[in-house]
Amino acid sequence: MAENYEVEQPSQTHQTLQEVSRALENGMFVHVRRMLEDMEPEDIAHLLEASPPKSRLVLWQLTDPEEQGEILEELSEDIKDGIMVRMQPEQLAAATEGMDTDDLAYLLRSLPENVSQDVLSQMDAQDRARVEQALAYPEETAGGMMNTDVVTIRSDVTVDVVLRYLRMKGELPEATDALYVVDENSRLIGELPITVLLTSQPDTEVLEVMEDVDDAIPVDMSDSDVASLFERRNWVSAPVVDEEHQLVGRITIDDVVDIIREDAEHSMMSMAGLDDEEDTFAPVLKSARSRSIWLGANVLAALAAASVSNLFENTLDQMAAIAVLMTIVPSMGGVAGNQTVALVIRGLAVGHIGDSNTRWLLNKEALVGLLNGVLWACIIGGVVVLWKGNLMLGGIIAAAMLTNLVVAGVAGVTVPILLKKMKVDPALAGGMALTTITDMVGLSVFLGLATLFLV
Amino acid sequence: MAENYEVEQPSQTHQTLQEVSRALENGMFVHVRRMLEDMEPEDIAHLLEASPPKSRLVLWQLTDPEEQGEILEELSEDIKDGIMVRMQPEQLAAATEGMDTDDLAYLLRSLPENVSQDVLSQMDAQDRARVEQALAYPEETAGGMMNTDVVTIRSDVTVDVVLRYLRMKGELPEATDALYVVDENSRLIGELPITVLLTSQPDTEVLEVMEDVDDAIPVDMSDSDVASLFERRNWVSAPVVDEEHQLVGRITIDDVVDIIREDAEHSMMSMAGLDDEEDTFAPVLKSARSRSIWLGANVLAALAAASVSNLFENTLDQMAAIAVLMTIVPSMGGVAGNQTVALVIRGLAVGHIGDSNTRWLLNKEALVGLLNGVLWACIIGGVVVLWKGNLMLGGIIAAAMLTNLVVAGVAGVTVPILLKKMKVDPALAGGMALTTITDMVGLSVFLGLATLFLV
Repeated sequence: MAENYEVEQPSQTHQTLQEVSRALENGMFVHVRRMLEDMEPEDIAHLLEASPPKSRLVLWQLTDPEEQGEILEELSEDIKDGIMVRMQPEQLAAATEGMDTDDLAYLLRSLPENVSQDVLSQMDAQDRARVEQALAYPEETAGGMMNTDVVTIRSDVTVDVVLRYLRMKGELPEATDALYVVDENSRLIGELPITVLLTSQPDTEVLEVMEDVDDAIPVDMSDSDVASLFERRNWVSAPVVDEEHQLVGRITIDDVVDIIREDAEHSMMSMAGLDDEEDTFAPVLKSARSRSIWLGANVLAALAAASVSNLFENTLDQMAAIAVLMTIVPSMGGVAGNQTVALVIRGLAVGHIGDSNTRWLLNKEALVGLLNGVLWACIIGGVVVLWKGNLMLGGIIAAAMLTNLVVAGVAGVTVPILLKKMKVDPALAGGMALTTITDMVGLSVFLGLATLFLV
Repeated sequence: MAENYEVEQPSQTHQTLQEVSRALENGMFVHVRRMLEDMEPEDIAHLLEASPPKSRLVLWQLTDPEEQGEILEELSEDIKDGIMVRMQPEQLAAATEGMDTDDLAYLLRSLPENVSQDVLSQMDAQDRARVEQALAYPEETAGGMMNTDVVTIRSDVTVDVVLRYLRMKGELPEATDALYVVDENSRLIGELPITVLLTSQPDTEVLEVMEDVDDAIPVDMSDSDVASLFERRNWVSAPVVDEEHQLVGRITIDDVVDIIREDAEHSMMSMAGLDDEEDTFAPVLKSARSRSIWLGANVLAALAAASVSNLFENTLDQMAAIAVLMTIVPSMGGVAGNQTVALVIRGLAVGHIGDSNTRWLLNKEALVGLLNGVLWACIIGGVVVLWKGNLMLGGIIAAAMLTNLVVAGVAGVTVPILLKKMKVDPALAGGMALTTITDMVGLSVFLGLATLFLV
């Protein structure tokens, strides 16, 4: 047993991957199939995600059809869609047999309507009814995330009866950490954690040991709110109820973990102008298309900055040193502003920033901008005086730097908050809006002062 | 019961927060204390994080000392440290009573050595021994994350004996989803999921129903690797073993969730040049200092770009239109390159990118750069011809754009990968290194071609 406890280290994936790619290149499909048989579905999913598109399809053909459903579950949206559109409805129905209803509903949502109908028609009546029920809830809500296979008990039975009931059932849903106590109208009145069930005397009534559920999840709560509740409360699973407080399902932590990661990655990817589901190994044309939208937005920003410079063409014509130095102030403003933007975006995402503290934050960031503005105005001003031997030019760049860093701090707080109020994703639009502001302010102040005092 | 199921929506925090700030301003401390009494420790922690520093200290004084340990656990590093340094060792010892060993060890690590010794000396001998054992493992490893209170059983007893043993114990550690089966040398030989325990017949032997543990976590595994294992395997808890495969502890999902979020946030915050633990409401001086380091790095980058322009001072002197347009190409290169950098950083973080697919990715991103380069070269070239009425200038900016976007794609892949090989955090240094490259290449090509063909 002792030699059996090695885990798959991240670097091992790449050893496997290299072995697999070599084997694929040499057409050793039997060898690859044998390797795949030894791997867990989630590791095969990881291998698929780390493979270029061509190898992905070959690898997929070599996986065990029995495991394909579990592998699909673990793949990210883009890659999953790419594989599923090539499968026949019978294959899909076979692959998805025995999957949790929430996961299955999630898969079916990403299929074209007629294909998902085909898959549903291949399922047995009871499973179909369950999946159709899950599909009735919007995707990004508690209803769309939840699983409907919950174990419910009544409050007037004894622990011993519950234990015998469970033994009769023979199997419990995955990650079951509590049984739910409901009344005759299916309304949730309490929960019995399994750890309590195990440590209670057999003749105790459920009513005596069950715990209150103060915060069952409403079925229409958004998935991000569900995730932050789980995170704050350290839950493993939680019951979901409808408006009548009737128990309709259960959400487990494994589905929440995916949302926590997605939400956190979303900010980073959006700030760079990428879709968070963007596949690292997507085909060239697809990537080029999705990225060019963002570049298009930046063309407008860059042209806006150029047209500011254009206003000062005469000044630039008379003194080339100004042109040489004019990129410094916008660059510093952009970096300082984006620090504030990143901080505010995270603060908004985790719910730390709201009406009650916006003003405080605005003052703080303006002051941070002022302090750093003074520091870097002195340093850059000094460098310019030494470099170009022009005291006035040093003073001008210093003044522009100071102004721009204060503007960057103020805009860094207000821009994301305003965008959020306008229902625009601050992570997506915040950075570019900020950079456009700091570019234009930086250029106008620097070139404007230069025009006033130097030419 | 039905009116009792409302959950704390994120926006409610800010209503509470506004009510609390108003009450604090008006000196209604009793009212605030009563509000805090009704709140869960994790919600109080959230309230503290969303408050400016001054209110934080007042609020802390008003919290129930019995709950302070749990509140501390939920706070982020910076804020927790700020509060703990003001507490007396007796207060700390009282606040931390009854805390899980892993959480307590985590708290003690952030205290100065002499204070944590003081706190330890206030604890009873058994607890102290446990915490000291936990402190012996490095912080960012499985050993540092794990909890030592695990329930172990032998394989030769029956399910009924196990059930009676658990009832005798009377309480199980939080989030217990499996009991661990060990041999006479404490070596882990299997696990008995609680769901299996509940559904097995009383006279069954543990040996017959226990499951293999293929991938117990080695005690020295890094916390990020532990998090990605949990995420991939959908675990709720997992056993930790030492080199002899002896069971030493257990890691639960709630500790892992924090690391998953931290790891995901790390990339976003680092890319903007922020520490991921940076407190949104940190004091001005502290924030200004931590951000000025990054601005300092950018000053060097901006001066490097200016010194490239400086090489072409003669050209700029002769044609101001060139100065007006010279910021466009670097700006587009920076945006395109940062898209690639963000994609590669995420790919490296989740383990999708390695030696086996770097070359493929490099080709792909170069091609994406080429395609978008052609597109935006045509557009910008056309705009410039129409705007400035100079065909050659349009051709020059188009050529520079094309070159710079291809360079951006290539550098976007190679820079983060090289940084990682050099053990520098690609999320921290990648974006700025990339921008420096695209600024310098963009300016040199544009100004160089302009010098050759226009002056």
